[in-house]
Amino acid sequence: MVKTVKGIAASDGFANAPAYLLVQPDLSYQKKAVTDPESEVQRLTTAIEKSDTELTTIRDIAKQSLGEEEAQVFDAHKLILADPEFTGAVEQQIKNDKINAEQALDNVSQQFIAMFEAMTDNKYMQERAADVRDVSKRVMSHLLGVELPNPALIDHEVIIVAHDLTPSDTAQLNKKYVKAFITDIGGRTAHSAIMARSLEIPAIVGSDTITTDVKAGDQLIVDGVHGDAVINPTETEVNHYQQLAQQYAQEKAEWAKLKDAATVTADGKHFEIAANIGTPKDLVGVKANGAEAIGLYRTEFLYMDSAELPSEEDQFAAYKEVLEGMNGKPVVVRTMDIGGDKHLPYLPLPEEMNPFLGYRAIRISLDRQDIFRTQLRALLRASAFGKLRIMFPMIATVQEFRQAKGILQEEMDKLTAENIQFDANLEVGIMIEIPAAAVLADQFAKEVDFFSIGTNDLIQYTMAADRGNEHVSYLYQPYNPSILRLIKHVIDSAHQEGKWVGMCGEAAGDSVMVPLLLGMGLDEYSMSATSILRVRSLMKHLDTNDLPDLVHQALNVSLSNADNAKLVNDFVAKNRK
Amino acid sequence: MVKTVKGIAASDGFANAPAYLLVQPDLSYQKKAVTDPESEVQRLTTAIEKSDTELTTIRDIAKQSLGEEEAQVFDAHKLILADPEFTGAVEQQIKNDKINAEQALDNVSQQFIAMFEAMTDNKYMQERAADVRDVSKRVMSHLLGVELPNPALIDHEVIIVAHDLTPSDTAQLNKKYVKAFITDIGGRTAHSAIMARSLEIPAIVGSDTITTDVKAGDQLIVDGVHGDAVINPTETEVNHYQQLAQQYAQEKAEWAKLKDAATVTADGKHFEIAANIGTPKDLVGVKANGAEAIGLYRTEFLYMDSAELPSEEDQFAAYKEVLEGMNGKPVVVRTMDIGGDKHLPYLPLPEEMNPFLGYRAIRISLDRQDIFRTQLRALLRASAFGKLRIMFPMIATVQEFRQAKGILQEEMDKLTAENIQFDANLEVGIMIEIPAAAVLADQFAKEVDFFSIGTNDLIQYTMAADRGNEHVSYLYQPYNPSILRLIKHVIDSAHQEGKWVGMCGEAAGDSVMVPLLLGMGLDEYSMSATSILRVRSLMKHLDTNDLPDLVHQALNVSLSNADNAKLVNDFVAKNRK
Repeated sequence: MVKTVKGIAASDGFANAPAYLLVQPDLSYQKKAVTDPESEVQRLTTAIEKSDTELTTIRDIAKQSLGEEEAQVFDAHKLILADPEFTGAVEQQIKNDKINAEQALDNVSQQFIAMFEAMTDNKYMQERAADVRDVSKRVMSHLLGVELPNPALIDHEVIIVAHDLTPSDTAQLNKKYVKAFITDIGGRTAHSAIMARSLEIPAIVGSDTITTDVKAGDQLIVDGVHGDAVINPTETEVNHYQQLAQQYAQEKAEWAKLKDAATVTADGKHFEIAANIGTPKDLVGVKANGAEAIGLYRTEFLYMDSAELPSEEDQFAAYKEVLEGMNGKPVVVRTMDIGGDKHLPYLPLPEEMNPFLGYRAIRISLDRQDIFRTQLRALLRASAFGKLRIMFPMIATVQEFRQAKGILQEEMDKLTAENIQFDANLEVGIMIEIPAAAVLADQFAKEVDFFSIGTNDLIQYTMAADRGNEHVSYLYQPYNPSILRLIKHVIDSAHQEGKWVGMCGEAAGDSVMVPLLLGMGLDEYSMSATSILRVRSLMKHLDTNDLPDLVHQALNVSLSNADNAKLVNDFVAKNRK
Repeated sequence: MVKTVKGIAASDGFANAPAYLLVQPDLSYQKKAVTDPESEVQRLTTAIEKSDTELTTIRDIAKQSLGEEEAQVFDAHKLILADPEFTGAVEQQIKNDKINAEQALDNVSQQFIAMFEAMTDNKYMQERAADVRDVSKRVMSHLLGVELPNPALIDHEVIIVAHDLTPSDTAQLNKKYVKAFITDIGGRTAHSAIMARSLEIPAIVGSDTITTDVKAGDQLIVDGVHGDAVINPTETEVNHYQQLAQQYAQEKAEWAKLKDAATVTADGKHFEIAANIGTPKDLVGVKANGAEAIGLYRTEFLYMDSAELPSEEDQFAAYKEVLEGMNGKPVVVRTMDIGGDKHLPYLPLPEEMNPFLGYRAIRISLDRQDIFRTQLRALLRASAFGKLRIMFPMIATVQEFRQAKGILQEEMDKLTAENIQFDANLEVGIMIEIPAAAVLADQFAKEVDFFSIGTNDLIQYTMAADRGNEHVSYLYQPYNPSILRLIKHVIDSAHQEGKWVGMCGEAAGDSVMVPLLLGMGLDEYSMSATSILRVRSLMKHLDTNDLPDLVHQALNVSLSNADNAKLVNDFVAKNRK
């Protein structure tokens, strides 16, 4: 019997609750010829009625617990059940072809799904395909007498156990009752891990086997700090983890006090902690956690949530909302960072063998200047309402930066001619995420106002390992000495020219990286809002005078990622003030 | 009227001959119902007979000019024409469905092609699909009265003009009559460019428009040194290019004298020029061009030419042949460098979003030790027959190297126990092609016997640009200062530990790179055999005392690839001894 399962610690915290298995049941069926189609139609009708009742319940509960918007998906499902084009077609097939209800339902829903999915340039129709798939599953479960997991109906505390969690799974989770989750697959940067941190619930990912180790209702302890899960714990184990959880709660309480404090080390040096955001909605978390700035505003959501290119006005409104919301604190906006791995109906991109090494981000912007100029104009107009900084992604050569900045200058000149207000002194910087740019940071530092190091991409290019590819994920090594050396060169080069350097990859909020980055003199740390107070607290307990030797060891003596994780953890245990 | 076309100089030399357009004619046809199927069958029979006669002629000529092996493909085509299952099915369709011969031919051949292609794990059947496609095209051309290009029938000097050249196109070219080629697409590292250099005929690739600019029979001048083509040249132009060609011929004559000479600079320093090979057959060219070693023996062909894993015996035979053929000169063998972009029936690899950042090369070898150990054992046994060096590809971390070397040691110990001879002192090195390894070269230099810099991959990872992707090919920049800095760090690190460094990417034979690499002290230059004499001559005219300042400028003052190309070309023009 498996007792403890080890995974990747994806989101801090502790939980103790019964397991809820969010696993698809077996919905396979036997194809059968039927002699009495009428009774088969009756089975179908009953299954549809049961599905409809169930959907009504789910919708009502979802509306209360999750809100109107999340509940609407179930209205869409009810509409499909009531649509004679759909249910009528299933009935018709049962009668005409004398086949059982399961087979007729499967045939008809496959047809509808294929039809909707064929409309590849219509996002609405694509979503209808997903709805038909969900509804068909529900009716099938009633035909087969099998129970579907209905996460929206959860009404008591649980720990979700799943192979993986998709965005649509999580939309249905009631955050009040979900105390933690554990998945089979994923890494610290997987969607589910990022979401757990943003919901501030403990999570373990990449456990490999949790869905087979655990039965529904098994009592579970999740230790999201160390990545351990205990199945049906003993009293001693419960007590042990309660103690750990208490310590952790005390730490969190200490962190909470730092919300309005400046970020200052034990020896009194100030550093800036900023937040990464994707939409103006994220400002709530930014303020709740006392961010001193926004270090990365990803503008991709504007492009991805839309069936057409976002207009200058739409963009202007979003940028202005964020700038005004930050009350004069700096906001670094990254221009469009989209590539061939995304499907946008209005921007057909080439099919590429290696999209991460392809046509994306600034490479598209410099080529499709219509799109780029619209974004720059919206940004410039918004700059009148706060402290905007503009950052170009995926810069590889000095020429690319000069070209991008030249286009920005042209748009500034046009606004001046039109007598439209903007901040003529706004800072213009680049992401350092391509190894070539890191190596030439001394040359770039003469031309830019600031750098922001994007560790996620910098690591995957430097190690030649796609971080989303499970076969090489062991090579995604933030503490590899090669990465640290490149980071140090970037920081030193910027400081040499009197420029500042931030970091906006996952690593900026990582407890092992922070002491190293502090030691190298990184100026700005931009992270998930929920990491801010933990990092501010960590910095408060570190003395920068202790760090030069740590940095020297990590860059020149250590030979591996693992060496450096141990080096820093031992150092912090010993030198915490 | 277009007179001159500019492309990428892909292979040196000059040619003046009429254009031969290797372009597929329009084989589209009208679908027609027929009232007299018998006369339609007669049309088909006539087209088949003409095709058969034509294939007999082509086969006989191909046998004489290209050899037995290349001619056999046409026998395969004749067999299909004689196969009643194929031609009978077309006749049957004409009669049954009362459709014209074109449509019936198209239908039947599509069915055959789909059937053969569905057998994805059988390379033989896949090739049959290509044969059916070729034969069907030929019969269709006779039905439509359109002439197909028949490159195997070329019996006078021509310059081939094509959109692109595939390996199967080129197998049919009679090297005696093909004086040059020009293509619309491709870069210096495209298949067609590499082939042109190996055939030693001038070539221009990436002209964009040559197939529309030129008519069949137009007189053409190709200047493969500068990448210029002149269409229907004037007498003055002919004279001008004759002069250039003469100068070039004199240069080549000078180069030929260097075949048995050592590689020595104007100031008397010796460097080693080696050759890159793929199979034992390449030894002919290696010897003809006076290579001092083999700097890269790519072992992938052993794996790719086979329907199953190559046995230890097959590998041993190939390695031994190369080692013995080199008579004690060094042979650097790279272990298997295969990834998810290749389809091998016996080694199912995961579908990956970014195969260049995926599971490949040493990453597979360390995981599939059965495959790796077989190769190492074959190599070790062969090491008794010459001077073998073993090199691991795609090494990113010191741990990977230690693990690979540990496995090699285990296989050595087994051979010792079995009393089988091998060279216990053979050198073991790594490719430097991942930025992390270049950055940490000082750490690697303490553990390896040598480095070989693989520029093709090093450039694409450092610039984050897939060199096969036309949308970002402008970022494939060998002379970018970031690449040169990494190379210098690798060389300096190796020399610090008394180790030698080679280079086996395209750049090692590049006229702009060679002066820079000499200046940085690179020890071994491994290139296409046909580049060796040109590079040996270039080195003879350079004085290493002039180079430190050039290197300093290129790494620290220049801001771009273009800056450096100009810098070196100006330097060589001025400082050639």
